[in-house]
Amino acid sequence: MTENTAKKTALVVSAHSADFVWRAGGAIALHHAQGYAVHVVCLSFGERGESAKLWRKGEMSEEKVKTARRSEAQAAADILGASIEFFDLGDYPLRADKETLFRLADVYRRVQPHFVLTHSLQDPYNYDHPMATHLAQEARIIAQAEGYRPGEKIVGAPPVYCFEPHQPEQCNWKPDVLLDITSVWDKKYQAIQCMAGQEHLWEYYTRVAQQRGVQAKRNVGITSQRDIVYGEGYQSIFPRVTEDLA
Amino acid sequence: MTENTAKKTALVVSAHSADFVWRAGGAIALHHAQGYAVHVVCLSFGERGESAKLWRKGEMSEEKVKTARRSEAQAAADILGASIEFFDLGDYPLRADKETLFRLADVYRRVQPHFVLTHSLQDPYNYDHPMATHLAQEARIIAQAEGYRPGEKIVGAPPVYCFEPHQPEQCNWKPDVLLDITSVWDKKYQAIQCMAGQEHLWEYYTRVAQQRGVQAKRNVGITSQRDIVYGEGYQSIFPRVTEDLA
Amino acid sequence: MTENTAKKTALVVSAHSADFVWRAGGAIALHHAQGYAVHVVCLSFGERGESAKLWRKGEMSEEKVKTARRSEAQAAADILGASIEFFDLGDYPLRADKETLFRLADVYRRVQPHFVLTHSLQDPYNYDHPMATHLAQEARIIAQAEGYRPGEKIVGAPPVYCFEPHQPEQCNWKPDVLLDITSVWDKKYQAIQCMAGQEHLWEYYTRVAQQRGVQAKRNVGITSQRDIVYGEGYQSIFPRVTEDLA
Amino acid sequence: MTENTAKKTALVVSAHSADFVWRAGGAIALHHAQGYAVHVVCLSFGERGESAKLWRKGEMSEEKVKTARRSEAQAAADILGASIEFFDLGDYPLRADKETLFRLADVYRRVQPHFVLTHSLQDPYNYDHPMATHLAQEARIIAQAEGYRPGEKIVGAPPVYCFEPHQPEQCNWKPDVLLDITSVWDKKYQAIQCMAGQEHLWEYYTRVAQQRGVQAKRNVGITSQRDIVYGEGYQSIFPRVTEDLA
Amino acid sequence: MTENTAKKTALVVSAHSADFVWRAGGAIALHHAQGYAVHVVCLSFGERGESAKLWRKGEMSEEKVKTARRSEAQAAADILGASIEFFDLGDYPLRADKETLFRLADVYRRVQPHFVLTHSLQDPYNYDHPMATHLAQEARIIAQAEGYRPGEKIVGAPPVYCFEPHQPEQCNWKPDVLLDITSVWDKKYQAIQCMAGQEHLWEYYTRVAQQRGVQAKRNVGITSQRDIVYGEGYQSIFPRVTEDLA
Amino acid sequence: MTENTAKKTALVVSAHSADFVWRAGGAIALHHAQGYAVHVVCLSFGERGESAKLWRKGEMSEEKVKTARRSEAQAAADILGASIEFFDLGDYPLRADKETLFRLADVYRRVQPHFVLTHSLQDPYNYDHPMATHLAQEARIIAQAEGYRPGEKIVGAPPVYCFEPHQPEQCNWKPDVLLDITSVWDKKYQAIQCMAGQEHLWEYYTRVAQQRGVQAKRNVGITSQRDIVYGEGYQSIFPRVTEDLA
Repeated sequence: MTENTAKKTALVVSAHSADFVWRAGGAIALHHAQGYAVHVVCLSFGERGESAKLWRKGEMSEEKVKTARRSEAQAAADILGASIEFFDLGDYPLRADKETLFRLADVYRRVQPHFVLTHSLQDPYNYDHPMATHLAQEARIIAQAEGYRPGEKIVGAPPVYCFEPHQPEQCNWKPDVLLDITSVWDKKYQAIQCMAGQEHLWEYYTRVAQQRGVQAKRNVGITSQRDIVYGEGYQSIFPRVTEDLA
Repeated sequence: MTENTAKKTALVVSAHSADFVWRAGGAIALHHAQGYAVHVVCLSFGERGESAKLWRKGEMSEEKVKTARRSEAQAAADILGASIEFFDLGDYPLRADKETLFRLADVYRRVQPHFVLTHSLQDPYNYDHPMATHLAQEARIIAQAEGYRPGEKIVGAPPVYCFEPHQPEQCNWKPDVLLDITSVWDKKYQAIQCMAGQEHLWEYYTRVAQQRGVQAKRNVGITSQRDIVYGEGYQSIFPRVTEDLA
Repeated sequence: MTENTAKKTALVVSAHSADFVWRAGGAIALHHAQGYAVHVVCLSFGERGESAKLWRKGEMSEEKVKTARRSEAQAAADILGASIEFFDLGDYPLRADKETLFRLADVYRRVQPHFVLTHSLQDPYNYDHPMATHLAQEARIIAQAEGYRPGEKIVGAPPVYCFEPHQPEQCNWKPDVLLDITSVWDKKYQAIQCMAGQEHLWEYYTRVAQQRGVQAKRNVGITSQRDIVYGEGYQSIFPRVTEDLA
Repeated sequence: MTENTAKKTALVVSAHSADFVWRAGGAIALHHAQGYAVHVVCLSFGERGESAKLWRKGEMSEEKVKTARRSEAQAAADILGASIEFFDLGDYPLRADKETLFRLADVYRRVQPHFVLTHSLQDPYNYDHPMATHLAQEARIIAQAEGYRPGEKIVGAPPVYCFEPHQPEQCNWKPDVLLDITSVWDKKYQAIQCMAGQEHLWEYYTRVAQQRGVQAKRNVGITSQRDIVYGEGYQSIFPRVTEDLA
Repeated sequence: MTENTAKKTALVVSAHSADFVWRAGGAIALHHAQGYAVHVVCLSFGERGESAKLWRKGEMSEEKVKTARRSEAQAAADILGASIEFFDLGDYPLRADKETLFRLADVYRRVQPHFVLTHSLQDPYNYDHPMATHLAQEARIIAQAEGYRPGEKIVGAPPVYCFEPHQPEQCNWKPDVLLDITSVWDKKYQAIQCMAGQEHLWEYYTRVAQQRGVQAKRNVGITSQRDIVYGEGYQSIFPRVTEDLA
Repeated sequence: MTENTAKKTALVVSAHSADFVWRAGGAIALHHAQGYAVHVVCLSFGERGESAKLWRKGEMSEEKVKTARRSEAQAAADILGASIEFFDLGDYPLRADKETLFRLADVYRRVQPHFVLTHSLQDPYNYDHPMATHLAQEARIIAQAEGYRPGEKIVGAPPVYCFEPHQPEQCNWKPDVLLDITSVWDKKYQAIQCMAGQEHLWEYYTRVAQQRGVQAKRNVGITSQRDIVYGEGYQSIFPRVTEDLA
């Protein structure tokens, strides 16, 4: 699967401006450390649905909340080593028209990602999340089409991974990939701490990482020296093409 | 996942003596070419259920059929570069008691496989196949247990892949891995031709390889120079532990 | 789960103006009898798709059908003891824009339901039904968000139950709750009889209630004196929080 | 299920202008040969997403591609013996508003189909396909409603079959019907050859037909003289009503 | 599917001696009326688990219960027009060794069925039922094998249908075939009345037939004159091979 | 569901002698505190498969390991307030014959449980676990049968809950019940500490309890004063019969 492009790249499509941190912060930091250029698209700031603590401060407006969320997300992206852009589509509900679809397809064309991270296919607690997945998937298909903006370089078939939702079993999410993020855990936890408005989730997602770490250790083929302490789970949407099954 | 053992190894658990050829011949030849020691266990010769052509010859007995099937399988294994052993448990129905379970667990301990290939979890056309999967899975668990033959070296958690059944959708089998076997297709087709008793399947499984090849090409992340023509599909049972998502 | 609010409440979201009767009439009457204030939202009158008998009368217009359906539904709600309102969104197809979503979210905020009843997640015979479920679910999420109409009292996480579709297995609907409606069956059957335009369904849904009654009896933990004759089945969307497993 | 109408009819709803050929060409030719009037609706020309070869010719415009695709499809329909119409909705993405829904419902009313063929329920590689299925299903429901264009002849409940997607297992598509198309294979292959822009698929879909042919042979109840060589797989959405189980 | 054998045949594999009546009595009578020879195998008498009323009579022994159950089943089979045999394997739990498997395979060979009816694949309320299905399926496979009792006439691939369990949704049973049994309902109800020991089920299964009748009517392609009042639901295990999709 | 028996009871069927602690310790302590008599059956000591640390001590024999495991389990049961018995069937593999089945059925008859806790339906990492579930389910069915040891008091239909496996998503386990165990967490953690041989799991299962606690809090209908910190998840096998949906 290797080829001689200048730099490997990855794309993360996040419904709200903090999702990429809780759910994919480890993958971002890890691939950044491996030399990937990772780009994050935040479809909304999560200003309505995921900023409860900010709203309770009083004297708040949607604009103020969005500003606060934007700086938190930017700070987290900086720590993780990713570039980031904000579509500001609004949340609760998140809605996307054709123009948004094309806008995201254009990001695919520009980034030419080697892999894509986004939300789970279902989430009964959060309808913005599967909407983001749907958008990320459909934009990828558009970006693959020769007839969309003919003449531009189309994208290949980058694997798409669904990151972990808040209540995994309720979303019928089942990880088939466990990513060892032990080496970058400090970065991820630093990024998590940027999310001042959702402090109640810091320890929750630390424990998620610990549980996935233990599980990763249990699924290693041949016992190696290396110790896995922190992990992230992912569910693939497409089959993996490989030449080595070990 | 790398470690400094002398040689990488793989284990294939095949219900009948030809299954490993149709379903995993490419994986075997490919990993052999990569330096793996691949070992095949044939639980039965398929003497009753998968030797129709031989039986129709007349003057046949179960022993004669088994002998014929054994030499076909041995010849195929030789071509693919695998060692092979025969449990001779009988087929239609295949049954396994505790002693057989331990016998297979001992093979796991001896081989210390880096990955395992076996049948699909379901098959309404063939009850021996899921029985073989069940046995392969349970033996793997026994071989992992410290308390089974204490003092012996236990096995780690080698990934287990289900190879393709004859009618994939009817078995609820869904490949999440597409293996590029283009470089070893000639070996696989040579091995297939050893199966004189099932000539009607030669072209069927050639087409399977071609279809999986086309599909593999459609799922490659970034278009590469390399051309995929033949493939094999696999379904993982366990999550994959990795540090690279591309 | 108890708390000291004045009165317990429930919300029923019905795609067409008769669904709440066939599918949830027992639950409504039962909880009304227990002191709940039950509120029904009919998204449409089912004027196109579920009023065949009325249309066959001749000299009919959409307005006349809607008027007839409204009085049937009002009469049924009165018998069951529920308040009712009509969104009049049209049916076949039922469609909902953002304003409708907010309108329903506002109902959630006003009612503050202890539980919610709506349609199944799938129905290949009726696309309005899962559309209603989707709307009910997404409105619930909006109503939970601090940032939606900030300052208003948000709703908690009321359990949502999917009531029985017309052909349950075809909708992949599986009841995990069987409600004993024996004590209010007379009310439900009275309400059913208000549906003059769908008389062919009266006996069908009587038999549904009898079958669910028999099944409820078969699932009672410890044989009790109480006799269950009529039941309603429900499928939960969310896990139940409890302190007692009996 | 027989009745004395003048002529039996079938409706095929195809997302792009070539889908009906690869996926249902055999069924169309076979039923045409049996006296059915088969009508095809192409929702789009697949001008963006499925005309890569045409775009690579240079000097192309969307209109030119559409014209080329229309003549290919018309030629194929002629060979298969079907009438055809083009909705020209655009592809990648395919979108349908209420008017389109009614337009298709009107086709149902006009054709009064004895069965309907359309795409699979899911397809992670192609979002236009399940969109077409959704539209075909919802239009069928509208066409059944007495209150839609009251006075017109409504349709019954024609069975709906999902034809085979490009990567069947990845679409969770499972055929429960195998159609013997051996007698019309030459017609189908002729029609396939009309698709000059997608020559790389000719052999792929020939092999699909051969594999489904072998599988059909394996599922015939009692060995008959008749030899099945080519087949097409279908997945039913609704239960079949019958008086004979053989 | 047609061939020139003397007479069409069917095989019913029933875990307990009354199951074939409740669950498949209509199919049996209907096909008998169409000229099929239908043969029923009762694996057990259901003496322990399904004879509660008999046991409550007092002065009962297992032998007495079995005798009573045998005459009920024989009487029902006579009414339905089927031959019947009893394996007397015991129930609660039903267990089958290799000899039983071969015994049933021999029945397949003798009967050469055009279709097979048996239990659902799952039933959390009754472990004997899926055990019977497993046995019926595996015996069918043995009977297809050239190498089992070589020289005998093997069986083809008769379709296998799972009949309706007591609580269908809980068994994940989903009917894809609705059989119109209106013309033989009187026979079925007569046969049902032979089951003196399970009188509480008479009305339950009458209502099941009525519900499936209504559902069958809703799934008829083109409205016909014929009126369906009673039905039976079946779930196919294998794909159907056909040349007509209407 | 209430009735006037002397005391409510519960039954826990545990494959190995520590499973009931990690997976159901909270439920046991909680219901003990509510006055239930909870009885635990340990099918094996987990001497082979779940005692790695003990085996590594050296100078160990199966008997010594079993003795150590028995005292750990007894101590944990004492803390949780449960009675306990050991079937000593052996583990890796766990196997059960008819006599074992009857032995467990007799426990059901004796205990007359109001609910039952056991393992998940699937577990690819541990084949003893689903074997235990199978046994618990089938024994329950035997114990319900009038014809098994006629004259004895049969059991009703106690709900059965599957407790949480080690890697929940991989076992396709989905909790539909979240039990608030905050009030008894200290007991559970004390019991956990009895498991000296599996110290690596203490923190793992503490985190499991914390995650389920957070999730329980998110699923409470109406925000209550009560704070949930620790939880246990369960998956029901049977539908719940109730008269209150809140």
